[in-house]
Amino acid sequence: MATRMNHQWRLAARPAGLIKESDFTWREEPVADPADGQVLVRNVYLSLDPTNRGWLYDMPTYMPPVALGEVMRGFAIGVVEDSRDAGFQPGELVQGLLGWQEFALCDPAGLTKVSRYPSLPVTANFGLLGHIGLTAYFGLLDIGKPRPGETLVVTGAAGAVGSIAGQIGKIEGCRVVGVAGSDEKCRWITETLGFDAAINYRTESLLEALKKHCPNGIDIDFENVGGQALDTVLSLINQKARIVICGLISQYNATRPVPGPYKFSNILMRRARVEGFIVLDYLARAEEGISKLVQWHQEGKIQYRIELVEGLENAVKAINKLFDGSHRGKLIVKVSEEP
Amino acid sequence: MATRMNHQWRLAARPAGLIKESDFTWREEPVADPADGQVLVRNVYLSLDPTNRGWLYDMPTYMPPVALGEVMRGFAIGVVEDSRDAGFQPGELVQGLLGWQEFALCDPAGLTKVSRYPSLPVTANFGLLGHIGLTAYFGLLDIGKPRPGETLVVTGAAGAVGSIAGQIGKIEGCRVVGVAGSDEKCRWITETLGFDAAINYRTESLLEALKKHCPNGIDIDFENVGGQALDTVLSLINQKARIVICGLISQYNATRPVPGPYKFSNILMRRARVEGFIVLDYLARAEEGISKLVQWHQEGKIQYRIELVEGLENAVKAINKLFDGSHRGKLIVKVSEEP
Repeated sequence: MATRMNHQWRLAARPAGLIKESDFTWREEPVADPADGQVLVRNVYLSLDPTNRGWLYDMPTYMPPVALGEVMRGFAIGVVEDSRDAGFQPGELVQGLLGWQEFALCDPAGLTKVSRYPSLPVTANFGLLGHIGLTAYFGLLDIGKPRPGETLVVTGAAGAVGSIAGQIGKIEGCRVVGVAGSDEKCRWITETLGFDAAINYRTESLLEALKKHCPNGIDIDFENVGGQALDTVLSLINQKARIVICGLISQYNATRPVPGPYKFSNILMRRARVEGFIVLDYLARAEEGISKLVQWHQEGKIQYRIELVEGLENAVKAINKLFDGSHRGKLIVKVSEEP
Repeated sequence: MATRMNHQWRLAARPAGLIKESDFTWREEPVADPADGQVLVRNVYLSLDPTNRGWLYDMPTYMPPVALGEVMRGFAIGVVEDSRDAGFQPGELVQGLLGWQEFALCDPAGLTKVSRYPSLPVTANFGLLGHIGLTAYFGLLDIGKPRPGETLVVTGAAGAVGSIAGQIGKIEGCRVVGVAGSDEKCRWITETLGFDAAINYRTESLLEALKKHCPNGIDIDFENVGGQALDTVLSLINQKARIVICGLISQYNATRPVPGPYKFSNILMRRARVEGFIVLDYLARAEEGISKLVQWHQEGKIQYRIELVEGLENAVKAINKLFDGSHRGKLIVKVSEEP
């Protein structure tokens, strides 16, 4: 039998600004057999997330940076091909930080078994029932603490997390206003997802549009973007507003230091709370979130969409879609066929 | 009997930058008799506070701006001279927004009786037992939520609020590091108040000094200053840090928009909470705070100092001491003699 090869993207250079293909090298090396206690996983789906960009700077974020020469870190779902750990059997679906490669040799401590839900595809474990859905769930409910009748603004509202956060806001009885970057996205979040209003920040004055659609001010901001969008929101927050800092995607490709919002002093004037969070802090409560999200999906209250990119070789090209806004839903690379 | 005159400072122009004497006019008018239901108060002590500066911009903060031509708003303690309200008797000490003037004709709803505490002077109602002490108490305990062993940084640490917040931090078992603007202030907060360390930001590198004095990082920041000080603190915060935005004094005299902290993204990376508050929100719980502060003072655990300026005519000149840092303790103008 011919030696099986494992294709990989390894970090070659720290990107300046948007990621270029030359920042990575496409390598192949033989697939190794698992040692005692190891599990060999064939990657099936690779999740591309804005936070990946943060791991490429030469500074620790909430995780150490990816080292030069290392396989790019990435969250993926795969199937166990070979196992020398009693807890995992060949054929089982698993997920973890399996990396941008076709095969991953894993320590079982870093693997979680993938649950299958009736009527939901495996990719839902990224789109709704994995880190994406849980980020929206805990971020909005635990940090944002929405109350019925309050006004919730979601930036990056057509993104994977934002679109779910807005729908949870509707379930909680809020007026939900989404900010997105195209008319198609605005139609999707209002007509399909049921947001009360949507603003295309590329064609409208965000300040004027927010004033119009938030006649009672803004009580909660679920912030995925940062920069000018956040500044504009801060100018319209109500007393005791909550600003949930889920992401600051406008800054992830910055090549020089970016100032914080000019309206920072409104945090004091309006007695607001600005709070960052990372879904990793909520893993112990994942089951609670997933069971709610499954229930809401079954009741038709939450929808999501996925953009599937074919082939690991296209991962580097695809990731910038997150930053230029050209993706349509949770961005996933299909690395190999589902078992 | 000759007509008694009421001297007043009225707002003449909105200041640009530091307050100039020409921004106010010194007026005198006859003292009016109280109408039915009114109380006439002779002002004794006028509190000068950084927040006064914010009331002079032509925009609402947590209060409407002072109007041009209006008597400057200010918190003061006075003695009832004449009363046509059954709830107040001549000779009683009262406090409220009595303004920068010698006599105030008041609606009783805006007046509170001043409690006298054994062994504490009347001015303690500003220095420790009024809005200053309560700001430190509720800001640190309710927003900062200190735990024993944590590291607390206080900026503006020799200021009226900061010096009390730091001492409460010590009572709660924190390591307390103060940032102040002179060697004399640094000595006072360490040698007299018991802070663990003090940094003179005018002569030391704040970043290097904070690294040295906060070897375990920063868990709580009691922020009175904003600007570069806050930015430096944000670069050293631990996961789940709390940044209590009590004041942003570095910005109160700004003549153009000031950007927020460049390290804003650390709020996300370190899952931090940045929260503004105004002591007015805690008035319903004032008794709780005051009884604790009195107790701690009697136990020798909290000290404070007051800088008394003689004469209402010197109020305008004196207020900039808050912004150039030349005051020594809670800044109070003595308007007339205590009864």
